Amino acid sequence: MVTSHIYSVFDDELKHLARGIAEMGGMAEQMVSDSIRALVTSDAALAQRVISQDVLVDKTERDIGDSAILMIAKRQPVASDLREIIGSLRIAADLERVGDLGKSNAKRVIAVQSSGIPRPLARGIEHLAELALSQLKDVLDVYSTRSAEKAEAIRRRDEEIDAMYTSLFREMLTYMMEDPRNITPCTHLLFCAKNIERIGDHATNIAETIYYMKTGEQPAGERPKDDNTATVVQPAE
Amino acid sequence: MVTSHIYSVFDDELKHLARGIAEMGGMAEQMVSDSIRALVTSDAALAQRVISQDVLVDKTERDIGDSAILMIAKRQPVASDLREIIGSLRIAADLERVGDLGKSNAKRVIAVQSSGIPRPLARGIEHLAELALSQLKDVLDVYSTRSAEKAEAIRRRDEEIDAMYTSLFREMLTYMMEDPRNITPCTHLLFCAKNIERIGDHATNIAETIYYMKTGEQPAGERPKDDNTATVVQPAE
Repeated sequence: MVTSHIYSVFDDELKHLARGIAEMGGMAEQMVSDSIRALVTSDAALAQRVISQDVLVDKTERDIGDSAILMIAKRQPVASDLREIIGSLRIAADLERVGDLGKSNAKRVIAVQSSGIPRPLARGIEHLAELALSQLKDVLDVYSTRSAEKAEAIRRRDEEIDAMYTSLFREMLTYMMEDPRNITPCTHLLFCAKNIERIGDHATNIAETIYYMKTGEQPAGERPKDDNTATVVQPAE
Repeated sequence: MVTSHIYSVFDDELKHLARGIAEMGGMAEQMVSDSIRALVTSDAALAQRVISQDVLVDKTERDIGDSAILMIAKRQPVASDLREIIGSLRIAADLERVGDLGKSNAKRVIAVQSSGIPRPLARGIEHLAELALSQLKDVLDVYSTRSAEKAEAIRRRDEEIDAMYTSLFREMLTYMMEDPRNITPCTHLLFCAKNIERIGDHATNIAETIYYMKTGEQPAGERPKDDNTATVVQPAE
């Protein structure tokens, strides 16, 4: 009886931890999505709200960290229970970084706003963000079902984001070369695009952590975390 | 007797973990320092060596993670012993990212090489890297002494790196505006500079983790993790 009682308290604590992660994921998602909307519509007030939101995401990460460590100390879990807790710590760290990247994009809204974004670039940024956000949304869904197979599938989708980022990178270089007045805003947009590409990376990290929580193994095969723009010497082919 | 025996095994395991972190720190430091040398001297062979080295850093992080989780499961540590292990996991994650950033810079050597780096920019990059590397070196020294006070002091030094990064950012925009042929190489250099600034951030994260390991508390006061270039609308004042 005592054992089953302890188990049930532990299960409640695990559920509480999972709820924290899900909440934090929802906040980070919203920040990214709002930051992109603020960027393409030059909405400084919305950008400011995204920037303020980051404190809450950071606080949630600290709370999750504190609960996780308390659970390890009090319950002394092993095997899959321990992986569950350590995995939650890792996922919370990734989501905290996603929030930071949303904030970083929001901070660039003012600098970009003064010169406006060429429509094709705005569409490119939106499209890239849609891909990264769908990757993030899907991985948070997989987190709630804990499917190792689905986690593996998401991990492979990162290449699509990388390819689109590379093409956007070239396009921006072209704009900069066409008119020096585009250099400053396009530089900010380049960093925004890079931030979005990194959000995709964090979604992939989360997929790998879910796989690990479920199986105790790292997923097989190398996954290039860097983008493919490092060797671009021509703005367009 | 039995208790003291267990304690001594646990202490050995903790020392082994700390050695792993120190080793990983040395590798990451070397990668960053070599990547900068490769960049400013256009040394493609050295860049290639940095890129290959990253696999080893990644492997060391996984090994540290595996040992840490095994230690938690077997020894069921609490309080400062548990913080020591969780802290090591966090530091290993930061060092893994530092290695990635060194690799990312090394990958840009070829793209930058074809057009060469203007001497003042090369000096700027070197100087920024020196600051970030001294920050990283110092934080690894603090790790070996576990001084919460010194960890706090390092954390405050991040502002210096951010200020220098912002001034380099403006300088690069000026070069791009002067001559469109500078746009592609300077874009790569901008990303290199940003990578170096992020290495400083990771050193600061590590300082915060050491403070936490030692005291069980997060250091007081906000620390802005984003750089100050987000609002730059003019290349030079």
